[in-house]
Amino acid sequence: MHDSVLSKDSREKKEEKGNGQMEKLNFSKGNGLLPAIAQDYESNEVLMMAYISEESWQKTLETGKATYWSRSRNQLWIKGESSGHYQVIKDILVDCDEDTVIFKVEQLGKAACHKGYKSCFFRRVQEGSFVVTQKPVFEPSEVYKK
Amino acid sequence: MHDSVLSKDSREKKEEKGNGQMEKLNFSKGNGLLPAIAQDYESNEVLMMAYISEESWQKTLETGKATYWSRSRNQLWIKGESSGHYQVIKDILVDCDEDTVIFKVEQLGKAACHKGYKSCFFRRVQEGSFVVTQKPVFEPSEVYKK
Repeated sequence: MHDSVLSKDSREKKEEKGNGQMEKLNFSKGNGLLPAIAQDYESNEVLMMAYISEESWQKTLETGKATYWSRSRNQLWIKGESSGHYQVIKDILVDCDEDTVIFKVEQLGKAACHKGYKSCFFRRVQEGSFVVTQKPVFEPSEVYKK
Repeated sequence: MHDSVLSKDSREKKEEKGNGQMEKLNFSKGNGLLPAIAQDYESNEVLMMAYISEESWQKTLETGKATYWSRSRNQLWIKGESSGHYQVIKDILVDCDEDTVIFKVEQLGKAACHKGYKSCFFRRVQEGSFVVTQKPVFEPSEVYKK
């Protein structure tokens, strides 16, 4: 894990302190889940958006690997567990309502999207169409064949 | 509005085309709402995360101003309507499941957060605390006094 999330080191200038120790996220609004945005820690490109449970949150902090909650499988989801394409946590940001977080990550394997693209947001809206703007990093049919 | 979302011009190289005209987002998973991430179109800083309804989506496309759905007020929410701090849409990205979007915006007034910070994500996690990392752009008590 990077120095930032749990250790005493700090990469950024802090202007003031938060309101005490062991502060909590608010999981109540979304039935125990809240959105987590995964963002490339270097380029700031948004890679994906998924949900975390309180268990996911604790696991993420403990392991330094982005851990979500799969709503379709209804279970803890360590991103990259099967592919090895983990998201290594470099920093975590919290919003003003404590109900959304940003995981700043190093995306191993260079692609976050199961469709083979670096980012799940590989399309842009243009005249009512969703137009692909990236080249895939891997070919899903080849990767998932293995 | 910027050239990108509705017009025929294009700022990015497209590798391939989407699957037809007037493609749809999937609002069904979140009871008619889906997450929209507002991102500074120049720096890629994530400014906020909020929800959109189908009506918000259409309004955003029509007006070129980010329009959300306020879950607390249960109504359409044109960001900046009262303050003048609109979010001007520069580009819109869609994820692989069509259930999350990114609004790439120019944030007027230089701050997206009602607490006066440029981004709602003005704190980072450090040793269990949420530590402020930004200076406020405006003082909320002064702005909201007016």
